[in-house]
Amino acid sequence: MLKKADRLNELEFSRIRMTSKLMDELEASGADIVRFTYGQPDFPTPQYIVDACKKALDDGFTTYPDYCGPLNFRQAVCDKYERENGLKFTPDQVISTCGAAQAAYLVLTTFLNPGDEVIIPNPMYNIYKIIGKICGATVKEYSLKEENNFQIDVEELAGLITDKTKMIVICSPSNPVGGVLTAENLEAVGEIVKDKDIFICSDEIYERLTYDGVKPVSPAAFDTMRDKTIIINGFSKAFAMTGWRFGYVITPAEFWEPLYLHAGHQVSGIPAFVLEAGAVALNEADKYGTVEMMRQEFDRRRVYLYEEINKLENFSCVKPTGAFYIFMNIKKTGMTSDEFCDWIVKNYSVAMITGSCFGTEGEGFVRLSYASSMEDCKKAIARLQEADKALTAMRG
Amino acid sequence: MLKKADRLNELEFSRIRMTSKLMDELEASGADIVRFTYGQPDFPTPQYIVDACKKALDDGFTTYPDYCGPLNFRQAVCDKYERENGLKFTPDQVISTCGAAQAAYLVLTTFLNPGDEVIIPNPMYNIYKIIGKICGATVKEYSLKEENNFQIDVEELAGLITDKTKMIVICSPSNPVGGVLTAENLEAVGEIVKDKDIFICSDEIYERLTYDGVKPVSPAAFDTMRDKTIIINGFSKAFAMTGWRFGYVITPAEFWEPLYLHAGHQVSGIPAFVLEAGAVALNEADKYGTVEMMRQEFDRRRVYLYEEINKLENFSCVKPTGAFYIFMNIKKTGMTSDEFCDWIVKNYSVAMITGSCFGTEGEGFVRLSYASSMEDCKKAIARLQEADKALTAMRG
Repeated sequence: MLKKADRLNELEFSRIRMTSKLMDELEASGADIVRFTYGQPDFPTPQYIVDACKKALDDGFTTYPDYCGPLNFRQAVCDKYERENGLKFTPDQVISTCGAAQAAYLVLTTFLNPGDEVIIPNPMYNIYKIIGKICGATVKEYSLKEENNFQIDVEELAGLITDKTKMIVICSPSNPVGGVLTAENLEAVGEIVKDKDIFICSDEIYERLTYDGVKPVSPAAFDTMRDKTIIINGFSKAFAMTGWRFGYVITPAEFWEPLYLHAGHQVSGIPAFVLEAGAVALNEADKYGTVEMMRQEFDRRRVYLYEEINKLENFSCVKPTGAFYIFMNIKKTGMTSDEFCDWIVKNYSVAMITGSCFGTEGEGFVRLSYASSMEDCKKAIARLQEADKALTAMRG
Repeated sequence: MLKKADRLNELEFSRIRMTSKLMDELEASGADIVRFTYGQPDFPTPQYIVDACKKALDDGFTTYPDYCGPLNFRQAVCDKYERENGLKFTPDQVISTCGAAQAAYLVLTTFLNPGDEVIIPNPMYNIYKIIGKICGATVKEYSLKEENNFQIDVEELAGLITDKTKMIVICSPSNPVGGVLTAENLEAVGEIVKDKDIFICSDEIYERLTYDGVKPVSPAAFDTMRDKTIIINGFSKAFAMTGWRFGYVITPAEFWEPLYLHAGHQVSGIPAFVLEAGAVALNEADKYGTVEMMRQEFDRRRVYLYEEINKLENFSCVKPTGAFYIFMNIKKTGMTSDEFCDWIVKNYSVAMITGSCFGTEGEGFVRLSYASSMEDCKKAIARLQEADKALTAMRG
């Protein structure tokens, strides 16, 4: 019988997708669901970027781009990192990708052999775990615990490293916990990897979405990690460009060639006019007003949700400082995360993502995405208040 | 030392790319090079498709598309295949891809295990060989010989099949030879695979570019292969959309799920507005005038080059009936393909692709792409005539 390759044996429909399907069914039968599930900004792409794309189409940017993107795009990425992150890179370190998702697939499949070990966060958006397994690598996990304010326990991480460890994945700000790693925390990570042949894969897709004055730091900012850090970033989240499928990788120059050659076979470049729009998106920083406006609106929702959730009897959360997620503690309910998500959507029409789908450390939590309108946030809080009362009453 | 994964050990810069680099250098030093190298139409994308893309941007198609593309796009693919190819498919058999290149990567990596055997044409555009090796598969080759009018030698193919054979790649019309497989030839292939668990990967990216009334037939048109054929197609070549990075896969429904789930991790979909433009590109067949105009112009160049080449002493070619390539026989020159390409570009400023880079059967041939203007074709022929005289004189 014809069947798929063994490397895909653990591929299955994502829990987030399946939740969406359940929502569709409930809505079809008349429920008014508040969807706190999806990591998609509820804003349109800023007009200056749409206009740049239309101009590029008119200007005939419709022929093969270089697999890594044209020089002006790669230079724009370097300028952005120097201007906004204080890090100097050169265009021969940059490769365009079909979103941060393909960037993750590219980086892991370019470097991980069967039998290599890759260490990822737990909880973590699950693509790294699956791609690691597609590579035939052994996936190990370091925990991000609420009581540790979702920082890395460096001793635990050090204990996971063996001579088979090829890569450590870091995602700050984090999906799903909304935490941002401190410079001190990353510095300590740098100390344990500095003399080791270990890549740091730094997923920085949420780096522009931080609050309370917190500035995320890239592992590449530390001398201990600079020559081993491969950065993944893109436009989806901060620029409200999820449907553009547009990201990039920044790599130490010596690893550019295998990434470039592999990218040439994986996708052979992304649309030429999208790359032009991307250069404009980054270069015209004077038009970042719309981007900053979105961030401020996320911030308002974040503060509102954080304050309201912590007034409740059965729920709590630490104050997130990045991304657009709240990782709400539901342990007092006595339900598992799966049970709770099922219960709250069916009884109170609020859809959340079960924490367990992000790893064992997500059990006892649910992920709320506040990339939904303030109106939805208020509606959801009203329903959570009802649910909270009911839970307290049930416990008697 | 940190290094790439073993699966990429045979990855290297493509000869086509390296030829481009040499051209750049020669041009920088003043040479007037005719480039017969690149498989990129010298036409702009038809305006109705550009307009559809701009409209989709204005209409807000900038949020996550489904990994497989929206229903209207997948339906448009089915309608096209029914209308133009006489084949019925349903939208649950279609998946959008980032060009035919990612489609090839997706199909092979989804089905080929290490140790499996994949049989590809020789000569053949080399991505299938490389991707097969990335999968850890053993790559075997069946020959397309000039004396056989570039048809498959079915006995040879049958002799290559073992119980490890998982997939056979077919590309008709062919890059690089410009041949189209006859229905009889494919029927014979069907007879040898019909009772075997072997996928047919049918690369149909050039199917709209045929001449002399030849109609290409898909392996999926035969009952013997229908349930095992995965079609790869796209927009780059016939619609002059190389820079849109936009293709698709059509699969027997039972293999859709692993392809879909894997696509979700490889690229997570292609741009939402590009998908909308693609639906319009296929649906508005009344606007195919520009597409047909391009095909007719390719046809004029094809006939001109074929006739002129066969008047020469040292060169010849069979009449191609598909794609936009002529596979020119240079055996009488006494040079290898590599030597000849080097000699002709340096002495006569005509750039061609060495046949040897497409496989051992390409030795003694060079690929000319007539996706260049008629003016360039005439210039190239004038130079070939000079080279021809010089070669004859040298032989004395």
